[in-house]
Amino acid sequence: MSNAPQAASQTLAPATPFYKPQGNEVELFQHAFKHQLPMLIKGPTGCGKTRFINYMAAQLGRPVYTVACHDDLTAADLVGRHLIGENGTYWSDGPLTRAVREGAICYLDEVVEARKDTTVVLHPLTDDRRILPIERTGEILHAPPEFMLVVSYNPGYQNLLKGMKPSTRQRFVAARFDFPSSDLEQEVIIGETGIDTATAKRLVNLANSLRALKDHDLEEAASTRLLVYTATLILGGYDPVEACRAAMVEPLTDDDETTAALMEIVQIAFGK
Amino acid sequence: MSNAPQAASQTLAPATPFYKPQGNEVELFQHAFKHQLPMLIKGPTGCGKTRFINYMAAQLGRPVYTVACHDDLTAADLVGRHLIGENGTYWSDGPLTRAVREGAICYLDEVVEARKDTTVVLHPLTDDRRILPIERTGEILHAPPEFMLVVSYNPGYQNLLKGMKPSTRQRFVAARFDFPSSDLEQEVIIGETGIDTATAKRLVNLANSLRALKDHDLEEAASTRLLVYTATLILGGYDPVEACRAAMVEPLTDDDETTAALMEIVQIAFGK
Amino acid sequence: MSNAPQAASQTLAPATPFYKPQGNEVELFQHAFKHQLPMLIKGPTGCGKTRFINYMAAQLGRPVYTVACHDDLTAADLVGRHLIGENGTYWSDGPLTRAVREGAICYLDEVVEARKDTTVVLHPLTDDRRILPIERTGEILHAPPEFMLVVSYNPGYQNLLKGMKPSTRQRFVAARFDFPSSDLEQEVIIGETGIDTATAKRLVNLANSLRALKDHDLEEAASTRLLVYTATLILGGYDPVEACRAAMVEPLTDDDETTAALMEIVQIAFGK
Amino acid sequence: MSNAPQAASQTLAPATPFYKPQGNEVELFQHAFKHQLPMLIKGPTGCGKTRFINYMAAQLGRPVYTVACHDDLTAADLVGRHLIGENGTYWSDGPLTRAVREGAICYLDEVVEARKDTTVVLHPLTDDRRILPIERTGEILHAPPEFMLVVSYNPGYQNLLKGMKPSTRQRFVAARFDFPSSDLEQEVIIGETGIDTATAKRLVNLANSLRALKDHDLEEAASTRLLVYTATLILGGYDPVEACRAAMVEPLTDDDETTAALMEIVQIAFGK
Amino acid sequence: MSNAPQAASQTLAPATPFYKPQGNEVELFQHAFKHQLPMLIKGPTGCGKTRFINYMAAQLGRPVYTVACHDDLTAADLVGRHLIGENGTYWSDGPLTRAVREGAICYLDEVVEARKDTTVVLHPLTDDRRILPIERTGEILHAPPEFMLVVSYNPGYQNLLKGMKPSTRQRFVAARFDFPSSDLEQEVIIGETGIDTATAKRLVNLANSLRALKDHDLEEAASTRLLVYTATLILGGYDPVEACRAAMVEPLTDDDETTAALMEIVQIAFGK
Amino acid sequence: MSNAPQAASQTLAPATPFYKPQGNEVELFQHAFKHQLPMLIKGPTGCGKTRFINYMAAQLGRPVYTVACHDDLTAADLVGRHLIGENGTYWSDGPLTRAVREGAICYLDEVVEARKDTTVVLHPLTDDRRILPIERTGEILHAPPEFMLVVSYNPGYQNLLKGMKPSTRQRFVAARFDFPSSDLEQEVIIGETGIDTATAKRLVNLANSLRALKDHDLEEAASTRLLVYTATLILGGYDPVEACRAAMVEPLTDDDETTAALMEIVQIAFGK
Repeated sequence: MSNAPQAASQTLAPATPFYKPQGNEVELFQHAFKHQLPMLIKGPTGCGKTRFINYMAAQLGRPVYTVACHDDLTAADLVGRHLIGENGTYWSDGPLTRAVREGAICYLDEVVEARKDTTVVLHPLTDDRRILPIERTGEILHAPPEFMLVVSYNPGYQNLLKGMKPSTRQRFVAARFDFPSSDLEQEVIIGETGIDTATAKRLVNLANSLRALKDHDLEEAASTRLLVYTATLILGGYDPVEACRAAMVEPLTDDDETTAALMEIVQIAFGK
Repeated sequence: MSNAPQAASQTLAPATPFYKPQGNEVELFQHAFKHQLPMLIKGPTGCGKTRFINYMAAQLGRPVYTVACHDDLTAADLVGRHLIGENGTYWSDGPLTRAVREGAICYLDEVVEARKDTTVVLHPLTDDRRILPIERTGEILHAPPEFMLVVSYNPGYQNLLKGMKPSTRQRFVAARFDFPSSDLEQEVIIGETGIDTATAKRLVNLANSLRALKDHDLEEAASTRLLVYTATLILGGYDPVEACRAAMVEPLTDDDETTAALMEIVQIAFGK
Repeated sequence: MSNAPQAASQTLAPATPFYKPQGNEVELFQHAFKHQLPMLIKGPTGCGKTRFINYMAAQLGRPVYTVACHDDLTAADLVGRHLIGENGTYWSDGPLTRAVREGAICYLDEVVEARKDTTVVLHPLTDDRRILPIERTGEILHAPPEFMLVVSYNPGYQNLLKGMKPSTRQRFVAARFDFPSSDLEQEVIIGETGIDTATAKRLVNLANSLRALKDHDLEEAASTRLLVYTATLILGGYDPVEACRAAMVEPLTDDDETTAALMEIVQIAFGK
Repeated sequence: MSNAPQAASQTLAPATPFYKPQGNEVELFQHAFKHQLPMLIKGPTGCGKTRFINYMAAQLGRPVYTVACHDDLTAADLVGRHLIGENGTYWSDGPLTRAVREGAICYLDEVVEARKDTTVVLHPLTDDRRILPIERTGEILHAPPEFMLVVSYNPGYQNLLKGMKPSTRQRFVAARFDFPSSDLEQEVIIGETGIDTATAKRLVNLANSLRALKDHDLEEAASTRLLVYTATLILGGYDPVEACRAAMVEPLTDDDETTAALMEIVQIAFGK
Repeated sequence: MSNAPQAASQTLAPATPFYKPQGNEVELFQHAFKHQLPMLIKGPTGCGKTRFINYMAAQLGRPVYTVACHDDLTAADLVGRHLIGENGTYWSDGPLTRAVREGAICYLDEVVEARKDTTVVLHPLTDDRRILPIERTGEILHAPPEFMLVVSYNPGYQNLLKGMKPSTRQRFVAARFDFPSSDLEQEVIIGETGIDTATAKRLVNLANSLRALKDHDLEEAASTRLLVYTATLILGGYDPVEACRAAMVEPLTDDDETTAALMEIVQIAFGK
Repeated sequence: MSNAPQAASQTLAPATPFYKPQGNEVELFQHAFKHQLPMLIKGPTGCGKTRFINYMAAQLGRPVYTVACHDDLTAADLVGRHLIGENGTYWSDGPLTRAVREGAICYLDEVVEARKDTTVVLHPLTDDRRILPIERTGEILHAPPEFMLVVSYNPGYQNLLKGMKPSTRQRFVAARFDFPSSDLEQEVIIGETGIDTATAKRLVNLANSLRALKDHDLEEAASTRLLVYTATLILGGYDPVEACRAAMVEPLTDDDETTAALMEIVQIAFGK
């Protein structure tokens, strides 16, 4: 197994990504990092949470380990497990353990999706002990000051079964994200794709029209990512109306009537 | 284990299959491939999704890995797992990992059926990172520009438990497929079986009559594949009415009355 | 492990069993075999599906692998799995893999009972690819023309959870079986046991009387197999009324009143 | 592991146990054994099913393997499994496999409790193939004529989830057991304990009084086994009323009022 | 692993514990032991079931193996399992197997909590066979006359899913326990702690007052064990009212109003 | 594996943490420790339960093992398990076993979350036997007088499925914790952060205002830990209103209206 070099490519400080702050989230993150407080980020899909973490990690010169949580993610997936090699079992660190050892940022995306046994490793890391006990080996890691735990979830589709327990939640300082303002979103689209200002403006206006329909016909609003996809297709020469259909309408709904209604709004924005 | 030669036979570019475009899906696929955007294809059973992927792969000169997703398909089934050999464990790549390493197209058919832990590998591959972290070995693969992820599902029989999360869905450009037009379907049947035009026309008309009954008595409409089966049996000398029963009616329903009603339509189309 | 000789005894062509066709099922099977189409057989318990497959296999000179599907049957049970031997793991083919390698008929009895992950191996075998990918070893088998997949289920006791997905169903040509006609059933009983014609006739009449009660008091109708059992007991010298009780009435119901009602019909048929 | 001698002690023909036939069950069993038909025995708890099987096995000079089925009993528990020894894995036969190899009687008590995957081994053993395929080794055993499969269940507490599938049920000849007649039960109690006739008679009368209450207050009627326990305690010098409480009343109910009502009946029968 | 000496310390006859009989349970146990009948003990939490078993074991000079049953306890936990050592697998006896080999008493506390597959080992041990078949090794142990199986449960919190099957229940002679009479309970408290008679009397009166509230506000009544705890704290110099709060009130309820009501009763009993 | 030194750092007596008693909990703990009684602590999130245990452990000079319980925590996680090494399996002690061997305090936080099979190890440790049977090795540990078991849970979010069984609960002496009084909480905040008295007072008053809203709009009240976080951010130079938002409001609620209402209260307390 040739993991060392590749793993390094993940954990070494990446080039600072393009990021436009929405509010005081950068300052709050800096304070939390400095005072060794864990941080919770709430916000809808595609509003830039992952990008923000990567931006802060680059600013602070720390590597970052990102884990997309899901129904079957267990504490062992975070901490590590024994594997069987030529000389019996050996221990293989999980991403959280690697982050603690290296003083990195560990980002658990959509943490409420993970299995409940993950709390066993999050609790001692998020109170004044700041330790990671590795039950299976008996080792206890003391997190260095550079280690920071960041978790996120989308308040929009939490359910009763998946809510975070108060005893876990009250261990974090928290910030709420939302879609960027129109001006900011326009800048983001131009910054990421290089499209002309007029088209960027039309895309943002279109997105806001579609977002106004949320809760009525759509499970979730169009993300900034989808706007970037649409701009990419248009810039590549694909028909703008069809680009909106492929990258903004079809990813949002399967319903025939809703599709027709959204495409009418698209026609008004981009039809000839 | 002699897997290398066989695996090669799957991944080397296959002969271009017969494919008739329905709309602008070929152009959209080309743009998505060029701009490294993942693609989602929606459409009913047997409308030609798999054939389309194979056609595009041949056009683009890329190998294709197809995975039929199901209730028990996990991230490990996609990424790979450790096996035990003579010298302890060794790592065995899954189809997604092989596709990333080789710059192939990975096609996850009916992706909503898969276990939720598959999102852990789909998310970092479907945002601007385009990486495949292999947790178990610590390796992180960077997808080459030739790699493309394509997923599909049938909006007709999704349920609440199995819907795609918006945070996953909004990572794809999407296209919707439907059954081909009558003229096109006729061409497909002739192209695949060599049957005469008159019989092909009668079969398509019959299929359209049966499809008009959907939502009333049938769970799903007759697919183009079943028309091809029927034409094959007729061409082989089997009685046309009995061929329709065996390849179009019985595969659609178990109900006695529905069977009788469908066979009456068959009698009108093919009875002497 | 001395499996080679025994396995051979299963897969070598058996002596042609006694079989009386009900309709055109023999012809349909021959066409499906010739054109390499997979086949689905629907019908009640004990109507002769297994016997038909064995008959066709003998006619076509192909070995047959029969798998009785159940709630816990997984893809690995069909395809194979790694076992641990003296020199680490070795691969052990499952019955489906053996059938593909040898160009045999693989018959999955009551396929809707199997776990859903079986679709991952059935789909690529039932479209024009006709391949069996063995995920665990990376091997991809191309089915020879002599390989044929046959599946069956009983439409009478399917439920919502266990229905076949349309995307799977529409991959088969299908035939429906029912109990044989009275004359045919009489012939079958005589052919299998050697009982006299008069008793065989009385047994068939009795079975038809009992079958008329189905849906009212009985979960399922008496199968031809139970008539053969009854005839066997009578021929062996056991009291005919008691033979009907032991081999036709008690296997059908646990309810006291239903038993009494069925025994009255038996008394009319066989009582002195 | 020193299993050979102990296993032998189970399978060698035991001394014929005391058994009083209730009806024609002995004759039916002999016919089923002679014609190689599998047998199903239905009846309430403690009515003597296990004793009957042991009696028949002794009469026919066959060893018997008894398996008490339960929720977690799988096909592997019946057929066998691989174990890891000094030289890699070796195969260890389960009780069903041992019975087939030795031509013994295999008795599956309360078969409806077992996991559904047991059908995979019962079906080919209960039709005219009479084979036991051992999937894990590829071996196929042909049952010798002396092998007989017997299964039982209690129709009184079957439920919807646990019913036997008709496709399994219709593979057996069946007999129904009930509690023995008063005279017979009296003989049984005397035969098993040596108690005096008067006390045996009083116990049987008491049991019948208690059984009349079934369906009203009791989940199940007092078995003959409990009468034997009571007689044993009385014969050993324990107070008869208290013996009835300990061995007939408390094992039947936890409810205070029902206990009081049953003890009143006991007082009438045995109080001074 | 140094288990031999410790295991011995469990199984060698312990010093006879303090035990005050409630009724004829000692005599019944002696008869059951002598006639090799298994025994079932019913009764509420903390009424002395475990102590009784230990007392009887000491009286009869038999070692005792106690197993606290729970939702995940399986037959293998009772019988034993294979472990992997330097020379391949070796067999490790479970507590039931050890009890059978040594002719000890095996006590399964709250047996209804155990997994259903435990019946497979309890049934052949609780009928006239008195054998313990060890499926995994093929060994069959014949229980010596000194072996006795005792099981218990609390009828107060049984539920539908966890009830004992009648076919299991009717294999035991049974006794019902309840809280001891006031005089007896007073003696027990003095015997176990050495507290003065006046305080013991006040504690028993207080417990009876609290028990009168059961079914109204409390899930279960205060056990004798809690009275012993309270007496211990008082004897150690802790404030009596606070001792009652810590050892009698807080362990019984979380509800504020119920706590207040119980503390008023405590104030009347022990307040100055 | 280099676990020995780290494990030691956990178990050696830590520096006494800052702790302000709320009532007589210190005295009760001392009595329970002295008389070898296990202890149950009830109380809301963040009220200082963990800190209290660490304080008592330091006072009594005992090491402490803390286990955050969760849905998937099993008895094996507490007791230990076999691992595979170069010379076959070896046993690895869990935290409960280590605590028993060393005479430490074992603290099971939120014990009601653990799997039910943990009762099998808690019961024999919490009655007069004070033993820990290690089923897998056959070893039985006798707890030394210095060993103490402490468990806790939060009565505020217990549910029916997760309640502690009375048979377990009645094995502990119990104490109830609540939030500290205003004066005490002010002292705690100053003691832990060094903030000025005026700000500490304002924070406590704000917390009490927010706590008054509990049961109406908030799932749980703000913990002392969140007050400490807020004071830390303010002391570090972060805007006080924004500090309250990040560390007191956002961790408590996701609801827009509730957030606005809480922020109004914050504005009154800290707005300029």
